[in-house]
Amino acid sequence: MTGEFSLIERFFARPTPSTVLGPGDDCALIEPSPGMQLAVTTDMLVAGTHFLPDTDARNLGWKSLAVNLSDLAAMGANARWVTLAGALPTVDPVWLEQFADGFFACAKAYGVDVIGGDTTHGPLNLCITALGEVAPGRALRRDGAKPGDQIWVSGRPGLAALGLAHRQGRVQLPEPWPRLCVAALEKPQPRLTLGQALIGMASAAIDVSDGLLADLGHIAQRSGCTATVHLVQLPHLPKGPNYDADLRRIALECQVAGGDDYELCFTAPAHQHVAIGQIAARLELPLWCIGDMCDGERGQVEVLDPDGQPVEFVRRGYEHFV
Amino acid sequence: MTGEFSLIERFFARPTPSTVLGPGDDCALIEPSPGMQLAVTTDMLVAGTHFLPDTDARNLGWKSLAVNLSDLAAMGANARWVTLAGALPTVDPVWLEQFADGFFACAKAYGVDVIGGDTTHGPLNLCITALGEVAPGRALRRDGAKPGDQIWVSGRPGLAALGLAHRQGRVQLPEPWPRLCVAALEKPQPRLTLGQALIGMASAAIDVSDGLLADLGHIAQRSGCTATVHLVQLPHLPKGPNYDADLRRIALECQVAGGDDYELCFTAPAHQHVAIGQIAARLELPLWCIGDMCDGERGQVEVLDPDGQPVEFVRRGYEHFV
Repeated sequence: MTGEFSLIERFFARPTPSTVLGPGDDCALIEPSPGMQLAVTTDMLVAGTHFLPDTDARNLGWKSLAVNLSDLAAMGANARWVTLAGALPTVDPVWLEQFADGFFACAKAYGVDVIGGDTTHGPLNLCITALGEVAPGRALRRDGAKPGDQIWVSGRPGLAALGLAHRQGRVQLPEPWPRLCVAALEKPQPRLTLGQALIGMASAAIDVSDGLLADLGHIAQRSGCTATVHLVQLPHLPKGPNYDADLRRIALECQVAGGDDYELCFTAPAHQHVAIGQIAARLELPLWCIGDMCDGERGQVEVLDPDGQPVEFVRRGYEHFV
Repeated sequence: MTGEFSLIERFFARPTPSTVLGPGDDCALIEPSPGMQLAVTTDMLVAGTHFLPDTDARNLGWKSLAVNLSDLAAMGANARWVTLAGALPTVDPVWLEQFADGFFACAKAYGVDVIGGDTTHGPLNLCITALGEVAPGRALRRDGAKPGDQIWVSGRPGLAALGLAHRQGRVQLPEPWPRLCVAALEKPQPRLTLGQALIGMASAAIDVSDGLLADLGHIAQRSGCTATVHLVQLPHLPKGPNYDADLRRIALECQVAGGDDYELCFTAPAHQHVAIGQIAARLELPLWCIGDMCDGERGQVEVLDPDGQPVEFVRRGYEHFV
């Protein structure tokens, strides 16, 4: 066999220790752990829409898997298996090898088996489906937030969008932010450990992919309440000699609407506050309490300035077809 | 929410009776039946590579799901759940509605829940992941064929490729073949019932997607033996007043290398011959014994004419990157 099949074998057939039957047959075979439910997510990444065609192949490999694992993290699932389908405009063995390196590095870092896929000819497009396990009734869903719950976010949403602005020369970031922001953009860390730690504690969760306000809006919508975010409680972003009004405005927009962060935004009853702080300490991952859920218009997200006055943002997140 | 989200909800959020949590969260949640393994397959279909950009949207919807279910059929799995990710160049509600109609018609016909997906902007591309259940150790794999096993194929491989040739005006088919061939091309029927009936009987199976000889070659390769096909045992294809040498040659090429059929090619010990005939009768689906597995060069597929002489074909199947 030549062509498609040898390509796949050369770069993508690697050991799958947690799988009954890996790549090479009509289907892969997996054996879910007894009594567990499976969380299933699929994401399609398109050159020109989700990433620049000249994106470093290794980073692209990492990120394309990481963003899917992030969806499993948002459910509190334990990541187990993934499939990868890709359309490629040309066969470039160097590109493929680097992409595979990044992809499998992420798979190894989070303990998932790459169980199969599909390779075809076409405009560059990557589609990944990820499967994780979660105990019945324990998954973190979007629809469990209650009025009075506190709103939390992990890490520093906005870094990825700032990293892109930096790459595009639209901002001058003070040190050490360029490195942090570009890392957030290129090598996001799915918060799988956090998601699992929040089981039984968080009332709802989502990953910040479209933008903090947009994603929080999904929780508010599905949970039937309103979210109130206090700007002053957001994690601090770069300050420095160049921290003028322009950078301040851009950084704030990136925080609330930048997306591409793959941090977790979650809600939890107020009595869990201390326990969540302990998780932050244990995972060495900052967790910020940024607001509260309240009664009000379903799906509404209200942003308040330090004086308690509403702040309006033109953009709240990313939508592909608006 | 407008844009992407309302689009998805409008056309693709339908009841998912066999699912714990359907579309609308970070992941879907499913509960595999106790003790069952899961067969997982993913396929990417690209406009211009796998289908013409002006393909009827309803047919495309049906076929894009059917070809994935066919992979589950080839493992003997019971189809349960699918995800659908799609990149669309534009938002055309008429097209989307027709595509969804075809897709859900196929889902309903085969009893699968559409549990989630992703919609994005980009050159037309559809990626589907299908999940089915199969008892541990019972799946029909490609690697179980033994020398002495008989080779079988269901239905009439070649019809789909003839349907395409007909659509393109390359052949003049006698009645009633145009209708049969176009139906095979546009609305393939995944052989799920056959696959499950063959469990414990077939030693290996694959679905005929790339072309009969190419796909049989995969069984021969994975099983470490040679396959011998007797041309005279292939199911008959259209004959009629226009059945000249040209049509005969094209029809034969379509049979052995056309692909896109989604029939099952399988092997079974000779003592199962009668039982397989009974399955054919019960399912009202012709099953043809077309050859034998034998010792010989691994992965080799030999085709013999009625005099037992080897026949060579330039094309044996479809490869995307040859």
